Amino acid sequence: MLQKLASQPSSNQSHLDWWQREDLCYHNGELVFAGHPVKLLAERYGTPSFVYSLDRAKNNLTRLHEALNESGFGGRYRILYAMKANRFAPLLTGLKLSGLCGIDACSPEEVEHAIACGFSPSEISFTAGSLTQKEYEILAKYEDLGMNCDSIHAIRSWGNLRPGTKMGIRINPAVGVSREGNERLQYAGRAISKFGIYQEQFDEALDLANKFNLKVTDIHFHTGCGYLTSQLEQWSNVMERCLWFLDKCEHLNRVNVGGGLGVPHQAEDGILDLVAWGRVLAKYFGNRDIKLDIEPGEYIMKDAGLLLLQKTFLERKSDTLFLGVDAGFNIAPEPAWYDLRFLPLPLIAPQGSINPVTVVGNINEALDVWYKDALLPDMTEQPFLALLNGGAYSSSMASNHCMRGKLKEYLLI
Amino acid sequence: MLQKLASQPSSNQSHLDWWQREDLCYHNGELVFAGHPVKLLAERYGTPSFVYSLDRAKNNLTRLHEALNESGFGGRYRILYAMKANRFAPLLTGLKLSGLCGIDACSPEEVEHAIACGFSPSEISFTAGSLTQKEYEILAKYEDLGMNCDSIHAIRSWGNLRPGTKMGIRINPAVGVSREGNERLQYAGRAISKFGIYQEQFDEALDLANKFNLKVTDIHFHTGCGYLTSQLEQWSNVMERCLWFLDKCEHLNRVNVGGGLGVPHQAEDGILDLVAWGRVLAKYFGNRDIKLDIEPGEYIMKDAGLLLLQKTFLERKSDTLFLGVDAGFNIAPEPAWYDLRFLPLPLIAPQGSINPVTVVGNINEALDVWYKDALLPDMTEQPFLALLNGGAYSSSMASNHCMRGKLKEYLLI
Repeated sequence: MLQKLASQPSSNQSHLDWWQREDLCYHNGELVFAGHPVKLLAERYGTPSFVYSLDRAKNNLTRLHEALNESGFGGRYRILYAMKANRFAPLLTGLKLSGLCGIDACSPEEVEHAIACGFSPSEISFTAGSLTQKEYEILAKYEDLGMNCDSIHAIRSWGNLRPGTKMGIRINPAVGVSREGNERLQYAGRAISKFGIYQEQFDEALDLANKFNLKVTDIHFHTGCGYLTSQLEQWSNVMERCLWFLDKCEHLNRVNVGGGLGVPHQAEDGILDLVAWGRVLAKYFGNRDIKLDIEPGEYIMKDAGLLLLQKTFLERKSDTLFLGVDAGFNIAPEPAWYDLRFLPLPLIAPQGSINPVTVVGNINEALDVWYKDALLPDMTEQPFLALLNGGAYSSSMASNHCMRGKLKEYLLI
Repeated sequence: MLQKLASQPSSNQSHLDWWQREDLCYHNGELVFAGHPVKLLAERYGTPSFVYSLDRAKNNLTRLHEALNESGFGGRYRILYAMKANRFAPLLTGLKLSGLCGIDACSPEEVEHAIACGFSPSEISFTAGSLTQKEYEILAKYEDLGMNCDSIHAIRSWGNLRPGTKMGIRINPAVGVSREGNERLQYAGRAISKFGIYQEQFDEALDLANKFNLKVTDIHFHTGCGYLTSQLEQWSNVMERCLWFLDKCEHLNRVNVGGGLGVPHQAEDGILDLVAWGRVLAKYFGNRDIKLDIEPGEYIMKDAGLLLLQKTFLERKSDTLFLGVDAGFNIAPEPAWYDLRFLPLPLIAPQGSINPVTVVGNINEALDVWYKDALLPDMTEQPFLALLNGGAYSSSMASNHCMRGKLKEYLLI
């Protein structure tokens, strides 16, 4: 039943079913995900439940491996899964056993959790700022952990604990890229951000590292979030800016271009062109004697997860038809906070007329809207819904707001 | 040590120390909150910690009682604390024992938690939408619970379970008010929202209630969030719109005007003028033979809490001086999501020059900024900071994003 090929959805699909792919599609009129009829999953597991397909995650990883190999990075790159996207323990162990990725961690707790799930410290790259002294001490115990310092202060703290070792520096190229200019997702750009070391401080950073006999072998930058094909030119400019930093490091071994690779939320988004993406990487780093790290989170997990919900009511209020469900934005904040809407999929294939329905949650807050004017068939007889793209930055950011934090998670293998 | 008077901070204070009040001020150069030197609290309890003053909460409640009594509602009103603002169990029990308020709950879990903390069902008013059948059944077991139905579907569900009883209807007056027009906080207004029953459906709602022999004794509307004095005129328009609904209910006993009373986040906000607020209520409801409910959350708890944080670094990046702390927006989302900034207070009174410092957290996300360009003294020798207004919609909305969800809470009595 499970899809073994690293296939990508065709970008040439109709407006309504653009999201259909081999492992997520209607089969005999029923929505099937990772080989399972979704209705059966909802009935069995109850709602709200997140279901994750390990095969889809591996598929997404395989597609990245292929793109990196085809761009000439064969044998000299790593894919580090950004576990903040989804840290569900069974998933992490599944990814570890796949052998397809290492880990990008951003807190000491994440490092400990990744190790608890089976990863070894040498497979983990750590990048975060604003650590306490105690946290530096915890991290320093893991000798093989890859450490990226993101401030002068961090270099000093790390140098005191681990003089004479190798380390990375997170730089801030002062340019960034984000999904259609969404300012909330801007990591680096015109506004000065807390992340990384700017050009003006870089000499000071290298001098300080030198003082502690720290070899700067890695340069790290994370400059965007959720970028798609139309943002690749902007992303290319970011790469170009980073070369200045690379050229200053005499022991450079590896460049980490961060994550930020996006997936579509609606038909018009289109999928990320991995060939064009690989071409950008090859252009700037292909001819250098360095290795490459990438840190995708969303790209690996977002479309590998569905959020299963129960319908609570279907009612017209004023001129709007509302469909209520049994969970709110607190268990998956992206639609409310970032306006990244999760498409509602009927579990029974649409038949008859399609009409706009606004899908809303059970939280007493105005922004608790899952999808405004989703085009859905008559939902009177359908007790459940599945939301697309619930695999990343959803359960990992869930809160117990209004004490509505109950949720279940299942890894489909 | 503790303040017993229902005092309100003077609005005539300087730009920098507008937030000082009897129970939160510098005493001999040290910040004191609820009778405790804050530095001692931070050293003892560790960070990140939320500290809540029960006396300040009671003080805020007493001020509301005074305003309602002075507006002529003596003996015919209730204050229902919106527990979604802060459900810390010791706090709820403290409020119960104060005898100053009942509870506004918005999920079955909140009802159960309020009861676990000592409130009786008759002191609880329930208002929420998008409930499952199972949840209606849980609520129906509490005979004395005040139930407000917020859709035709809800009236039908409730009517089936509890025919012949009293109930409330949540209406949507199709006008709203929010803090300076912040759209994210808009409950009712031009855009059709999921909340309540609109004018067009009200006759149908009353007919349906009648069919189940349900007496509509309560009308509920919650139309805003964080309003201050300058929004009172707008709020007054909302009240006026609601009269139409009131006049249609023959068994009307009580009108619930919701919460939404705000507190200042910066000097220019100013405090809510409770006399003017009471005047609006008296104008529309004073001469009617009905009781009044209000449901404040923020107003009671927001300025009764501080968030204590540890400084992690102080460093200039490009042209910005950053002060890092040991917690991020995931444990108190308002500054990041709603741009409601929590003023950082030095624990040692400022001396010497004051300069802009951007206070940032430890989460790997661009929006993890506590306060942009806060005016602070030299913080080199100060290991801690306290953030103002951490008492509401902070810990109650906390997530474990990046596994940085650790936090402690303390009730100061």
